[in-house]
Amino acid sequence: MEREFINWLRQQLPEYPLLDVPIGDDAAVFQLSQGARCVISSDLLTDGVDFLVDEVEASRIGRKALAVNLSDMAAMAARPFTAIVSLAIPNRFGMERLKQLYTGILTLANEYSVSIAGGDTNSWEGPLAISITILGQCESTPPWRRNAARPGDAIVVSGDFGGSLQGKHFDFVPRVNEAIWVRDQFEVHAATDVSDGLAQDLTNILSESGYGAEIQLASVPISRVATSLAQQDSRRSALERALDDGEDFELILTMPPAEAIALTQHVNLPCQFTVIGRVGSGTQLIGVDAEGRRRPIQPGGFEHTF
Amino acid sequence: MEREFINWLRQQLPEYPLLDVPIGDDAAVFQLSQGARCVISSDLLTDGVDFLVDEVEASRIGRKALAVNLSDMAAMAARPFTAIVSLAIPNRFGMERLKQLYTGILTLANEYSVSIAGGDTNSWEGPLAISITILGQCESTPPWRRNAARPGDAIVVSGDFGGSLQGKHFDFVPRVNEAIWVRDQFEVHAATDVSDGLAQDLTNILSESGYGAEIQLASVPISRVATSLAQQDSRRSALERALDDGEDFELILTMPPAEAIALTQHVNLPCQFTVIGRVGSGTQLIGVDAEGRRRPIQPGGFEHTF
Repeated sequence: MEREFINWLRQQLPEYPLLDVPIGDDAAVFQLSQGARCVISSDLLTDGVDFLVDEVEASRIGRKALAVNLSDMAAMAARPFTAIVSLAIPNRFGMERLKQLYTGILTLANEYSVSIAGGDTNSWEGPLAISITILGQCESTPPWRRNAARPGDAIVVSGDFGGSLQGKHFDFVPRVNEAIWVRDQFEVHAATDVSDGLAQDLTNILSESGYGAEIQLASVPISRVATSLAQQDSRRSALERALDDGEDFELILTMPPAEAIALTQHVNLPCQFTVIGRVGSGTQLIGVDAEGRRRPIQPGGFEHTF
Repeated sequence: MEREFINWLRQQLPEYPLLDVPIGDDAAVFQLSQGARCVISSDLLTDGVDFLVDEVEASRIGRKALAVNLSDMAAMAARPFTAIVSLAIPNRFGMERLKQLYTGILTLANEYSVSIAGGDTNSWEGPLAISITILGQCESTPPWRRNAARPGDAIVVSGDFGGSLQGKHFDFVPRVNEAIWVRDQFEVHAATDVSDGLAQDLTNILSESGYGAEIQLASVPISRVATSLAQQDSRRSALERALDDGEDFELILTMPPAEAIALTQHVNLPCQFTVIGRVGSGTQLIGVDAEGRRRPIQPGGFEHTF
């Protein structure tokens, strides 16, 4: 099966001008722009954890496997340019589903001008596992870090939050273009993307930077899906879902307040950006409600606190 | 488990001067030497295919997962400098075995001055799968390709062949230093490493270059293990094992005959190099025995031909 698949794959791949040696040798070869920094990241997605192989089209699984990697590049304000795709394919997966899975990867890759530099495709007795490694570069500006938040920074998020498991975790827009758009016009101190939930990933920025923060709970942008879920099942409020649900793959940025105002009031935004709070000198993440009441937010345990 | 493991891992990693941003952010960042070409490759190893998790120490599995990637760098004459390690860990694998597995990776990585730039470690219901992506660079010389063999080239191999499943497939020396040593002193036209068997991987070079070859069967270096296996089980000769067994991870080089002589007669060889034949103008791979009889070699089907 592998040889037939590789032949099919070679036909699918366009010519990539930046790959000196494309797929098909012992390794692929590329050159970076002069002086550019190379940014590298990898995500491994597995059946039963990141997707249920029998409940979703293979193309959406493939798309997600690349999209989560693109989201890591966005979190660093790097422009992705190539990816390596390794697949552990169940023996009875079938060639058609394998092609669909890869088509999901390729369609998104083409959208973001990301080449496929190789990988490894093997059949086995186990379930489906997809490992993608992505490379990007930062040209003019250094990459965004998690550990560079400063007291007084505004905390800004893209998009909205909560209920991603209803579908967004497959179909989200990785914020690559939005991050580069911000990077080229505004000063950003720290950044990450939201994979483990807004509260958890913001806590990561804070603990690695050594500060705390206050967020205005009424400012947290809540997705329509989270609102609707909370109406169906009141055990968790829409706000709790927005703070704790994982896999939103939105950006969290910290930046000087004046820059945050300029960003959020820009007349031609590529997506919604919202100021939700401010980095402070403590070490805790504090939620402030509409009445001014302050309570610590425990990531993941939020539902038990409020 | 993942957080405890990541904390342990961070303590194991030395400081890597070439990594501007090490493990622990959304991605790692590095810079290449000015003008260097970046070489990238990936191998995915799975339980039941590349190892049997219950029959071998976890450290040897980890070592192999990195070593096969190092071998790809050797095949390109690239110097590896960083690796990304993604692990799908069975739920009941246990922290101790996970640490042993990673120790196997780290020990070999340190030996070759390869940094670990990150990765992804996830537990799941499936068996063990290890995906490693490796990056190397070629500084002064272009990478070795498979498709660049020329008629008249001598065919040279490192080491010896056959019976790798008895242990060499875990413990082989990836020919990284040997390849760079050759690259810096001799002209090489085409190269690959032997993962699918000497006959198969030589056939890959020939078909991608558009030529055939003759090999002197008496010149093929046969491992002691292959000889001993043939004595125990005469259904496959030692030569058949040397030509067809996979996972030797030795180098096949094609080079001008005078260069091949200079290489094999060098007084200070880093490993054994042997001329086994010559690239010709046909399209077939022909084996010539000690009596001068010529027969085509079918990769993998060799045992049925002889």
